[in-house]
Amino acid sequence: MNTRLTHFSAGSEGLWGIREIRTIKGSPLPHAERLQLAENAPSSESAWLLRGIRSNARYTTADEKAQLDARQEGLGRRDSTVAVLIPIRKSEEWWQLSQDQRRKIFEEQSKHTSVGLQYLPAIARRLYHCRDLGISEPFDFLTWFEFNPVHEKEFDALLLHLRTSREWEFVEREVDIRLEK
Amino acid sequence: MNTRLTHFSAGSEGLWGIREIRTIKGSPLPHAERLQLAENAPSSESAWLLRGIRSNARYTTADEKAQLDARQEGLGRRDSTVAVLIPIRKSEEWWQLSQDQRRKIFEEQSKHTSVGLQYLPAIARRLYHCRDLGISEPFDFLTWFEFNPVHEKEFDALLLHLRTSREWEFVEREVDIRLEK
Repeated sequence: MNTRLTHFSAGSEGLWGIREIRTIKGSPLPHAERLQLAENAPSSESAWLLRGIRSNARYTTADEKAQLDARQEGLGRRDSTVAVLIPIRKSEEWWQLSQDQRRKIFEEQSKHTSVGLQYLPAIARRLYHCRDLGISEPFDFLTWFEFNPVHEKEFDALLLHLRTSREWEFVEREVDIRLEK
Repeated sequence: MNTRLTHFSAGSEGLWGIREIRTIKGSPLPHAERLQLAENAPSSESAWLLRGIRSNARYTTADEKAQLDARQEGLGRRDSTVAVLIPIRKSEEWWQLSQDQRRKIFEEQSKHTSVGLQYLPAIARRLYHCRDLGISEPFDFLTWFEFNPVHEKEFDALLLHLRTSREWEFVEREVDIRLEK
């Protein structure tokens, strides 16, 4: 999965079994058995279908990028048998903020990158953007995480940090989809 | 045209007559008679078709936004009978830079916002993003300018400033489409 665009299709097929779908905020997504990741949209009908595109980093500084690059490992590690997909939509208020205001909330107030860094390389992640794919996308981002099951408690601690941060006051929809290979 | 997504369709129809298409860098766009702006893609065939989406500001600080908001006027002014559409693609090198590196080149080195501010309210502008609409977009941005024909020399001075800036070293394709109502 090194293409820029990825379709996340929930239904009866796919490498990943869906263990649980937790609605954190806003409308839920219906349950399904399996999740398929593919560059193209599936030809058969899905329980639900999300799509996201990899894009340039929006907040990361050169120093932070160097630290991330030094510590992070790729997706697809053999022992990363648990994955979590977290679709998020932020409020219009967030998108109307200026770049410096968003950066300040994201990092200086919420420590999004510096706290995430503490969980590397155990928790691998990849961000997909949705908001500018079209005018009717249900989410702004999809974040994909992969780790060894022994790290699931640490992962939950990372989520707890983020969900109680200033940045998360701007989150108006969030779903937490737990998967296993 | 207050929708987020806009299609720019060149052919025999549209409010704007195409006066000239100048290829500044990279592949040209073929000539056509008229340009139509619409939310949806046209049903008939076009000489060429570009699309862009309005999105959040990527570099503007709160201070700069306040200055811009205080000086700028909207599109569609009665005496703005000249428009210019400038599609641009930047290099992969640009997109691999971190946010602080891009901001530094954009504003501290190239004065993109502060010089543009000097031409307000005469030169009205609107930015459309293309890069994250899909994986095969020919351009990264479309910028739309509108002004009274008496300001065309000032507009060319603004373009000269930008085209000789550090930021423009990352531009690998640029077309300059002059239009009149």
